[in-house]
Amino acid sequence: MIIDMHAHFFPDISEKLSNSIINNNKAPWLRIDNINYGMIMKGKKEFRPVTSSLWNSSHRLLYMDHNHIDIQIISATPLLFSYDIEIIKAKEWCMRINDYARELCSINPHRLKSLCQVPLQDIKEACREASRAKKSGHIGVQIGTNINGKNLSDCIEFLNYCAEINFPILVHPWNIMSSERMKPYMLEWLVGMPAETHLALLSLILSNSFEKLPKNLKICFAHSGGNFIWQLGRVDNAWHKRDLVRLDSEYPPSHYIDRFYVDSLIFNVDAMKLLIKKMTINKILIGTDYPFPLGDLNPKKIIDDLDHISLKEKNMIFSENTKLFFNL
Amino acid sequence: MIIDMHAHFFPDISEKLSNSIINNNKAPWLRIDNINYGMIMKGKKEFRPVTSSLWNSSHRLLYMDHNHIDIQIISATPLLFSYDIEIIKAKEWCMRINDYARELCSINPHRLKSLCQVPLQDIKEACREASRAKKSGHIGVQIGTNINGKNLSDCIEFLNYCAEINFPILVHPWNIMSSERMKPYMLEWLVGMPAETHLALLSLILSNSFEKLPKNLKICFAHSGGNFIWQLGRVDNAWHKRDLVRLDSEYPPSHYIDRFYVDSLIFNVDAMKLLIKKMTINKILIGTDYPFPLGDLNPKKIIDDLDHISLKEKNMIFSENTKLFFNL
Repeated sequence: MIIDMHAHFFPDISEKLSNSIINNNKAPWLRIDNINYGMIMKGKKEFRPVTSSLWNSSHRLLYMDHNHIDIQIISATPLLFSYDIEIIKAKEWCMRINDYARELCSINPHRLKSLCQVPLQDIKEACREASRAKKSGHIGVQIGTNINGKNLSDCIEFLNYCAEINFPILVHPWNIMSSERMKPYMLEWLVGMPAETHLALLSLILSNSFEKLPKNLKICFAHSGGNFIWQLGRVDNAWHKRDLVRLDSEYPPSHYIDRFYVDSLIFNVDAMKLLIKKMTINKILIGTDYPFPLGDLNPKKIIDDLDHISLKEKNMIFSENTKLFFNL
Repeated sequence: MIIDMHAHFFPDISEKLSNSIINNNKAPWLRIDNINYGMIMKGKKEFRPVTSSLWNSSHRLLYMDHNHIDIQIISATPLLFSYDIEIIKAKEWCMRINDYARELCSINPHRLKSLCQVPLQDIKEACREASRAKKSGHIGVQIGTNINGKNLSDCIEFLNYCAEINFPILVHPWNIMSSERMKPYMLEWLVGMPAETHLALLSLILSNSFEKLPKNLKICFAHSGGNFIWQLGRVDNAWHKRDLVRLDSEYPPSHYIDRFYVDSLIFNVDAMKLLIKKMTINKILIGTDYPFPLGDLNPKKIIDDLDHISLKEKNMIFSENTKLFFNL
């Protein structure tokens, strides 16, 4: 059995509807061009060409059948987060997106599950929407790596609330640092995204946030945690050597490695071996980034290719870890 | 025998002298506080507390003796690069810094070697200074990961010139992307630096630059190439899947892995194993980042700790690769 816990949707939301809520000329909406293709729009601008599985669950299920994926847990395309708009609009927007997600899952609720999104610019409203979404069937929440340029240590109350109501979290990069140098060749996705996730996780650790969070918090970082594991030696060394690095934290970063999960999106079997060695086998969950082309759309292969772990351990990554993570 | 090819100096350059050349209120200079400690200054501002080995070669040699380092190849602290000042001033500044470096090595020319710096904002002048520095005894050149916010594909003529005169290059992160979120805990050094080097190397590859450079070019990327090796699977996958990624390049990024070198600054033996597997053993050179506290000041240990390679292979990393790289 394979459960994919990192896959995206984008609802069939029209320009008119999008503008009726957000109304700032940059509202995201979907232009459907034909049965298989569409364009994510931001106001009048074309943002990204996309394929129909984003909004068509029948197409999604066909892909899942073909790639031996039994259950897929879908979350919004991060462009939809809406952290930077007025809270009253963001609240309505999140509810709308979350209800769309439930609709997309309704075609086959045993095989399609969803994560909600919340208006993190207002912690109280974020908690309220998390509770509402949980009641409506969402099994967890996807949040961004930063909230309007602030690190996640800024929304510790929300993380605590998720632990309290037993609501697992997927942290996904968005609003990433960029520059003119990163415009060509999708360098924002290739260099920026894994650095962004590294920053989110490391700043959470170095701000001592895990000491302020209960151990039952379930939090998973996308794209195998970005560059975190690769740079862990450098970061631990810096923590021991420099007062500025360890200013607020009680233990070096490697101490907190058992407090979070990562998905399997590392795209290379040797890197996966290192990931497993450092994270331990029970902290890795299958993710695909489906249906985006930069995803790993056949996630079984990288695990099948591992020659040093047992079938039982492979099944932990394929589905058992994810069942425990999401209380399935 | 151990040769350390990534270590820094900062000359004993006074505020007055620094201002007489650069004269912009941000000129870097050294405030020596006592026999062991000093402060790198930028104009009137304290930039970074530092230790005396940066400017005192006797102290440097004591450290080398203690850590079994036979030869150290020193390069300027990247703050000294001066790419963003008028070329006439930058030219004089680079000459001055380069002559200081030769002076620092003169105490023991067999054990201390140096890399020069060049005013890359003007390719012709950069080539001229590289030639002058080579004649004065420098064995290679250190350049930044970007030139005033432009990628290295912008200075291909200089790289070609270095290949022509057989002058090896160390690429070092500087002028890294940052944000308010990276100000605490030295996150610029921990997250920004390895992303910056990743960006420099990947943009060079995706712009097809290695196809425009001769195979005898010797170029080494600091800090084990940043996040390049860790993200290589993701990047190759993206190259195959997305036209935007492969827009200008003939082959996927992994094709170019035999065209560059990296230093050993990865700080973890398991990560080092992955680095060796992907780069091959003859492309890794010992580096320490000495005398900065975020360096690996006992570089022998991580190689000694490798249990899967022979003593002969260890000696390749300790010194043989570096001798070949620098024509020693």
